[in-house]
Amino acid sequence: MRQLSLLTDLYEFSMANGFQQALPTTWGHFDVFFRNVPDDGSFVISAGLQQVVTALQQFHFTPADLAYFKSLALWDDDFLTYLANFHMQCQLTAMPEGTPVFPREPFLTITGPLAQAQLLETLVLNIVNHQSLIATKARRMTYAAAGRPIMEFGARRAQGPDSAVYGTRAAVIGGARSTSNVLAAQKFDIPVAGTMAHSWIQAFDDELTAFRTWAHYYPDNSALLVDTYDVLASGVPNAIRVFKELRAAGHEPVGIRIDSGDVAALTTQARAMLDEAGFPAAKITISNALDETIITALLNQGAPIDNFGIGEKLITSASAPVLSGVYKLAATKTETQWQPKIKVSASRAKLTMPGLKQVYRLYRPGSQLAFADLIALADEDITHLTELSVYDSNPIKFKTHQPLTNFVAQPLLHPVSLTPTEITSVAAIREYSQQQLTALPKPTQRLVNPDDYPVYMTAALANLQTELAAVNA
Amino acid sequence: MRQLSLLTDLYEFSMANGFQQALPTTWGHFDVFFRNVPDDGSFVISAGLQQVVTALQQFHFTPADLAYFKSLALWDDDFLTYLANFHMQCQLTAMPEGTPVFPREPFLTITGPLAQAQLLETLVLNIVNHQSLIATKARRMTYAAAGRPIMEFGARRAQGPDSAVYGTRAAVIGGARSTSNVLAAQKFDIPVAGTMAHSWIQAFDDELTAFRTWAHYYPDNSALLVDTYDVLASGVPNAIRVFKELRAAGHEPVGIRIDSGDVAALTTQARAMLDEAGFPAAKITISNALDETIITALLNQGAPIDNFGIGEKLITSASAPVLSGVYKLAATKTETQWQPKIKVSASRAKLTMPGLKQVYRLYRPGSQLAFADLIALADEDITHLTELSVYDSNPIKFKTHQPLTNFVAQPLLHPVSLTPTEITSVAAIREYSQQQLTALPKPTQRLVNPDDYPVYMTAALANLQTELAAVNA
Repeated sequence: MRQLSLLTDLYEFSMANGFQQALPTTWGHFDVFFRNVPDDGSFVISAGLQQVVTALQQFHFTPADLAYFKSLALWDDDFLTYLANFHMQCQLTAMPEGTPVFPREPFLTITGPLAQAQLLETLVLNIVNHQSLIATKARRMTYAAAGRPIMEFGARRAQGPDSAVYGTRAAVIGGARSTSNVLAAQKFDIPVAGTMAHSWIQAFDDELTAFRTWAHYYPDNSALLVDTYDVLASGVPNAIRVFKELRAAGHEPVGIRIDSGDVAALTTQARAMLDEAGFPAAKITISNALDETIITALLNQGAPIDNFGIGEKLITSASAPVLSGVYKLAATKTETQWQPKIKVSASRAKLTMPGLKQVYRLYRPGSQLAFADLIALADEDITHLTELSVYDSNPIKFKTHQPLTNFVAQPLLHPVSLTPTEITSVAAIREYSQQQLTALPKPTQRLVNPDDYPVYMTAALANLQTELAAVNA
Repeated sequence: MRQLSLLTDLYEFSMANGFQQALPTTWGHFDVFFRNVPDDGSFVISAGLQQVVTALQQFHFTPADLAYFKSLALWDDDFLTYLANFHMQCQLTAMPEGTPVFPREPFLTITGPLAQAQLLETLVLNIVNHQSLIATKARRMTYAAAGRPIMEFGARRAQGPDSAVYGTRAAVIGGARSTSNVLAAQKFDIPVAGTMAHSWIQAFDDELTAFRTWAHYYPDNSALLVDTYDVLASGVPNAIRVFKELRAAGHEPVGIRIDSGDVAALTTQARAMLDEAGFPAAKITISNALDETIITALLNQGAPIDNFGIGEKLITSASAPVLSGVYKLAATKTETQWQPKIKVSASRAKLTMPGLKQVYRLYRPGSQLAFADLIALADEDITHLTELSVYDSNPIKFKTHQPLTNFVAQPLLHPVSLTPTEITSVAAIREYSQQQLTALPKPTQRLVNPDDYPVYMTAALANLQTELAAVNA
């Protein structure tokens, strides 16, 4: 990732300049969290932390940047000198990439001198909002495909190069098994997939010649695109003819791809034709504007599909293209003591959670299945407790005290090192994510109208929130 | 823009390898066009050409790329040598950035050795689909704002860094006047805007202190965010108090920003309070999840808004986050003669237009108002004709011959040089785009249910399409 220190909103600099002068010794603690889940799901898959770490490791300003700042004539020279000698002091805690995160849970925190931590807001949000959005969408499609591989095919419809490259990374974290995107595959060591486009067929005088020529160059990688002219009258018969020639020459075909038309009917008939011709192992891939709803509908109709190639609706999360993660000040510290902060809004839903916090996933003793999450103040020692008084964390719900017993609490936020360390592979992150998903109740994983998963907060946190909200209202 | 030669789908390389061996002397001519306009508009604003040109100028493969290709073991050594010594031979024609483009009109064409032109498909589409999408969305919001400035505020919700940076460029082409995005502003010389976030207010003990401190550091740039606690009971009264202090010290305030709540009611009351206090020139900016529909509704209610700060719904084109531009083979040439090519699909709507073409915008003699577009074969000399026989270009409509007389035809596609030349500023592109918009009929510019703008094709092109479709059906 290139240097992104300027990828921020102007006001972050203006505030940093002000903080640097008005509150030079004050530190801030910011939470990154979201309030709503795309597509009315119940959770988000966190992603992007690795790129945040890289961006912070490389955070600095060049002489050209400083000349640009000077030309804006907004900030004084002391601040420009501070930027010229920028030394990153911020500290991070985060949930590992691939963790399912529920609304209002901080999944990333940034602590540092107010000016510095403020400066990182836009950059951090840009990265984690984007990657978490796409990982979440990929999780939905992977769930719908019920074990059949998802291939990421969206580069041409992504929102610019990074959307294609980092979107693919996120798609793999969310469950995709391969990509057609060569740059993403190279960069993140992802299996790369793909066959031919319609232009290959068109460039030859007829479909059969196009297929034969392909089979000649790629005898062991012949997945033929059969819908340039007519799938059942021309594409599949020509493919079968070439498959027989391949087999006669000692090669086995990969299969066919269909990119248009009524996929349920076409795949059913194509499957029968392939089986009849002696190619029951030839795979059928479809790739026509798919999303989790269409995948579910096709599989419910029994369409014999082996692979899903997914384009624009995954790489842009087209049905819900924004994850509205926010970066909110939760505490400041001038001497040694953190002072909790809150933001009160006209809408109760936007009430923030003050103070330094930890998020726990709660299990019954001996069980691998989580039954709730719990947000606590960082200095509460939850893991050693067996009994606890909790409240629903959702500020639009009436606060009703509930007793909590018989639980094991696993903390989800861990310190993140900014010193260069070995990078976890996306395949390993996907594996971790799958394990975390398996630990969630099945009704919470459902795509449509999922069951509410309880996210509690401790009595101490709830009381602090109520108290500060009253003071600031 | 960094090197993006690997930002492509694997199959482009596999096809290029096949073309290089099977049809080494064949050239291809590809059209870039779209079939559907986002948000049911009638046209798209083209954008991204400059980045396409830059990417093609820098197109090459590094030793690391070649080592990666070798590790894939898909293509033979001759092809890897060809890539190692890649010499760009492709030629481009395009409509200038900022041109309103209608469905099925090629707005960019790529001509070159089949292997090369095929290799560029994904990269070209990624760039122009993204930027044209955002320019189109910005045009809609600019139209809705009816002369009030649009400010781009979306970096934190964009789909990765490029989505923020190049999306901002596109937003300015489509009409945005400024951005909060410092990197985009620096890179493309865009006015940069912004004030403070809620965290500034929260970091101080109270709102008044936060405002006063800001006014101290930015006496001539005091746009105060008034909705951290309560807009009318706290924010606006505190702002007015600080504005009076500023004025007493010889400075004039900029205004206020409201980021939440019922904006129509709040701005009306805030305006009255500011006027009453003697600050009728203080501007009111709003910035709460706006899009063209909400802008229109607020202005229809008479909300006294001076500036619109627009975030996620512009930078992601949230209501329609995909522009489905395609890259289709229209002709091949092995000796000297171009041979037109067509793609026939089960859907008539997807029928392509064969051959090398030119697109004309048609005016009545002496008029500045366009009344239709015309797609012709490149070797038809339209500009010297006064009478012509045309058909509707939409393949789902019945082909009815229409006479066309009394017109002046302006060609829209022009050759694009790949040698480095002076770069047109985004402000100049926006200016050109505004002129082109002014030339379109008003009912075509409408946001909701716009009037159909005729896009004709010549009889020669229509006959060629019919003929080739019949041969390939």
